[in-house]
Amino acid sequence: MTPAGKTPRTERGRKTLRLLLDAAAAEFGEKGFHESSVVSITQRAGVALGSFYTYFDSKDSLFQALVRDMSAQVRNTVGPVMAAEPDRLDGERKGLAEFLRFVRRHKELYRIIDEAEFVDPPSYRAHYENTVAGYVASLKVAAEKGQVRSDVEEVHAWAIVGMNVFLGLRYGVMGEDRDANEVAQIAADFLTHGLKR
Amino acid sequence: MTPAGKTPRTERGRKTLRLLLDAAAAEFGEKGFHESSVVSITQRAGVALGSFYTYFDSKDSLFQALVRDMSAQVRNTVGPVMAAEPDRLDGERKGLAEFLRFVRRHKELYRIIDEAEFVDPPSYRAHYENTVAGYVASLKVAAEKGQVRSDVEEVHAWAIVGMNVFLGLRYGVMGEDRDANEVAQIAADFLTHGLKR
Repeated sequence: MTPAGKTPRTERGRKTLRLLLDAAAAEFGEKGFHESSVVSITQRAGVALGSFYTYFDSKDSLFQALVRDMSAQVRNTVGPVMAAEPDRLDGERKGLAEFLRFVRRHKELYRIIDEAEFVDPPSYRAHYENTVAGYVASLKVAAEKGQVRSDVEEVHAWAIVGMNVFLGLRYGVMGEDRDANEVAQIAADFLTHGLKR
Repeated sequence: MTPAGKTPRTERGRKTLRLLLDAAAAEFGEKGFHESSVVSITQRAGVALGSFYTYFDSKDSLFQALVRDMSAQVRNTVGPVMAAEPDRLDGERKGLAEFLRFVRRHKELYRIIDEAEFVDPPSYRAHYENTVAGYVASLKVAAEKGQVRSDVEEVHAWAIVGMNVFLGLRYGVMGEDRDANEVAQIAADFLTHGLKR
């Protein structure tokens, strides 16, 4: 894998990059990495092939940038919603509902992240390691405030991230037969109180 | 996808099929579906090419059978360990520790199941839907016995399956730096009591 693209210095450059990343999400999400092509992505984006090579060396570097971009989009969508709640456990509920809505709007998210396991394993690993690291840090802050159990650590964070990923898979990608707020309510109550009677 | 293989009627046939499935797990796990070949798998298995075609029509049908086989192997390894505990929440702890040990012995499990999302989507979906369906049924039995909360439903099952899958990814596939029993203990305490202070 080549480095994941250059950073544009102008507003116009940022718009072109955004068009390319959104077209790449649609193309990779629909066809998968191997059937997707740079030419087809630039056509979807309405961007000249030369402009593509201003930002990326190859389809590989575009894919790498896209995984990073989608990872950031999830964080930037869900993070502020969680942070806006004074209580962490309320934040979990609101954050999960927001995540389910994000997945419903971006059903390609799972296919792209999951294909990274095969196409770009370091990006796949980085996506989850970064997500979990953020969770550990914010859970420890919540523990200091007395909002969650004091022994929170990495195992809890991997467990919660796995829970959210699978709820997104079932109630975002596989079907929208349940209300996002209701699923988030049930999951947050479970997260708060556990399974015990 | 063609149907996933014929059932052998003799002991010798069952041994041949087992050799083929184990060789397929090694080959698909190492090279991925597209780089794997029937010839190479029969060579690994020490089985004649003609015998392969007694059981499978194609590489696709072998892959489909393998996903079903690995799914059954997990259930048949973890299920009895969980069922042996009179209390469901003790069963969750013992079952997760057993699952982590299984993943450490079969690191190819994740790559194969995850590649099914692309190579054989119905098998991928069936693997998780069957796992969750089993969870819902057994949680409801535990609820009737008063061992877990009475409102357990599909959302809880998807959440727990996601938690276990991600703990297996982190503490089985990605690294063995934590003791399996300790991880299972932390996760089970979290599953029982939740995140609250």
